[in-house]
Amino acid sequence: MKVLQLGVGAIGTVVARHLAGHRAVESLTLGDMDTTRADRLARELKGRVSVERADAADPQALARVIKGHGLVVSAVLPKYNEAIMKATLAAGADLLDLSAGGDDQLAHDAEWKKAGRTALHGMGEDPGISNVFARWAADRLDVVEAIRVRDGEYSSSEEFPLACLFSTETFIEEAVSPATLFENGQWKTIPAFSNREVYPFPEPVGPQVIYNMSHEEVDTLPRYIGKGVRFVDFKLAVPDDMQKYLVLLDRIGMTRRDTVRVRGGEVTPLSVLAAVLPQPADLGGRIQGAAIILVEVDGTKGGRKVRHVLYAPMTHDEAFRRMQVTATAFLTGTGAAAGAIALITGKVKTRGVIPPESLEADPILAILEELGVTTHRTENAL
Amino acid sequence: MKVLQLGVGAIGTVVARHLAGHRAVESLTLGDMDTTRADRLARELKGRVSVERADAADPQALARVIKGHGLVVSAVLPKYNEAIMKATLAAGADLLDLSAGGDDQLAHDAEWKKAGRTALHGMGEDPGISNVFARWAADRLDVVEAIRVRDGEYSSSEEFPLACLFSTETFIEEAVSPATLFENGQWKTIPAFSNREVYPFPEPVGPQVIYNMSHEEVDTLPRYIGKGVRFVDFKLAVPDDMQKYLVLLDRIGMTRRDTVRVRGGEVTPLSVLAAVLPQPADLGGRIQGAAIILVEVDGTKGGRKVRHVLYAPMTHDEAFRRMQVTATAFLTGTGAAAGAIALITGKVKTRGVIPPESLEADPILAILEELGVTTHRTENAL
Repeated sequence: MKVLQLGVGAIGTVVARHLAGHRAVESLTLGDMDTTRADRLARELKGRVSVERADAADPQALARVIKGHGLVVSAVLPKYNEAIMKATLAAGADLLDLSAGGDDQLAHDAEWKKAGRTALHGMGEDPGISNVFARWAADRLDVVEAIRVRDGEYSSSEEFPLACLFSTETFIEEAVSPATLFENGQWKTIPAFSNREVYPFPEPVGPQVIYNMSHEEVDTLPRYIGKGVRFVDFKLAVPDDMQKYLVLLDRIGMTRRDTVRVRGGEVTPLSVLAAVLPQPADLGGRIQGAAIILVEVDGTKGGRKVRHVLYAPMTHDEAFRRMQVTATAFLTGTGAAAGAIALITGKVKTRGVIPPESLEADPILAILEELGVTTHRTENAL
Repeated sequence: MKVLQLGVGAIGTVVARHLAGHRAVESLTLGDMDTTRADRLARELKGRVSVERADAADPQALARVIKGHGLVVSAVLPKYNEAIMKATLAAGADLLDLSAGGDDQLAHDAEWKKAGRTALHGMGEDPGISNVFARWAADRLDVVEAIRVRDGEYSSSEEFPLACLFSTETFIEEAVSPATLFENGQWKTIPAFSNREVYPFPEPVGPQVIYNMSHEEVDTLPRYIGKGVRFVDFKLAVPDDMQKYLVLLDRIGMTRRDTVRVRGGEVTPLSVLAAVLPQPADLGGRIQGAAIILVEVDGTKGGRKVRHVLYAPMTHDEAFRRMQVTATAFLTGTGAAAGAIALITGKVKTRGVIPPESLEADPILAILEELGVTTHRTENAL
């Protein structure tokens, strides 16, 4: 199959390294607004790789670029999701994107079903691997009671007192905005930095302070996992120092998403903050720490209460050795690549717009393993 | 005498309230780029007050506005000092400004002497009242050993986690830049936030954490006080929380004075930070705390070692009751007004460009008293 990948940031680089030269990928086209990085990457990759200028904001021009490709992998900012969905459907290809773009992409399900096409939506590390972990455990339970998603990524660095491991603006907005959880069968909104706890992640991560966040899994798992699930939450590691900094930056107004007047011009404070902080793509090899995605699923099987725990850890050092990126970029890009390979190799039979928990879990875990991400699983009586 | 005042921010408002209707002020012209606030202020003031549009950055146009005035009081940003000096000298008036503008204004002394004009440079609270305090004590000593200037202003507020009591950009730049002190007869540069100590300010301020800063007094007092002074330093109160915030903002790059690219435009991070923080002019009545300027002068008199301590405190509440401003704005504007009244009433005989320690101290302290700032003085054997 011919694959078009949009965006070659840190995550896009990981996706492209996995897809280029893969036995099921006939050719890989790298599309970006600015083709400089795509050209450089294309020269390094094996297999048939070409570069095209592509504007994710222009569905008509984009549909022309897509024509002839069987799959579009979108590794650009999620705000372009809607435009890319439209162009991909028009061009008659399948689609994979990595996270939610504000609108509800899943609402386009009927349209895509009718066209006999699949859009796998929100397939990275989390959402992505996390949803597949939840599906794997749910398939082994009669009743699902609770799903707890824990992202334990952390970093330390003398050089960067405040380093965000993925899109700086997205991370900060996520962290300082109200969080959501699904409790007693209902969605709830709670204040930012709610329900602080120290979670004992397995090595090489260890104990991390985590907080509830608003995240895709909280939105989709209650709707797609079924089996009576009554509780879903997502918690992210935010070290105490970083939390204090973010609270301060938020309180003084530096996380504002509206514009302020500065010397006759207008500017968004959050975008200026993101511009002075290190770019996530530049952090590879310059920070210590690790990433981990872990999912706990509680439920009953044959009348017994059990807990499944699945997790995939990686140190930033290891990710840098493998692909010159952080572990966060590695896990996110590898999650997307696993989804893409499942689509390319015909392992996804469901048509329509689907979240990753709609995938059959075992084939995805096998592909992840092949791509270098090992899943650890435990099952214990509760 | 006809007086032209440039700038009607918080400090300019205080200066204008003191000068308008003063027996020695024939008329007061308020000059500003934007005349909205000046018009509003003029309507409130007694005496002959008029408003003129004045561009502090344009010496030729400014000289035309100055013509006919005997004194120019500049309460605009110090970066305009040089242009205003040039225009004032050309128009044949005296001048008072409030702080240093980067260039060495005192270097123009010969020119002003030759023209028979006086420019009183750096006359606010500190520099200003602080220098006059140092002069007062030095006049009572045979040998001056050390001068320690301590600014104990502080504020607390639930609404504003980070509030700067004077020009936000100037304060932050001052706080995060290397500090200076004069030690063993030599100027030294030391890192920002050096020599932390808890200083026991008198009531209503009480103990405050203070640090060395780079400040005008450290530059001028060793040159103009004479009497063998070997040590001069300036320390400013920076509460622990504020210090942590400033160190963070500096480390992550939000205090940068160069430009960064943000979405195709260019912007200076520090100016964006200043734009999201509360404007000092808006803090009156909305913060608790106080301001105080205190000077310790150690020396010998008739062979005895003595220490003079002079200080002037004011709570933000009291300043708000009097003039709807903070105590910092009140003390700074009142220092400038006292200098202006000394110039207007012929109490300053020295020609040229002079720092406030070149003034005779007693008449200034008497004017300050008349304007509502009481000086406390102690003298103790060491």
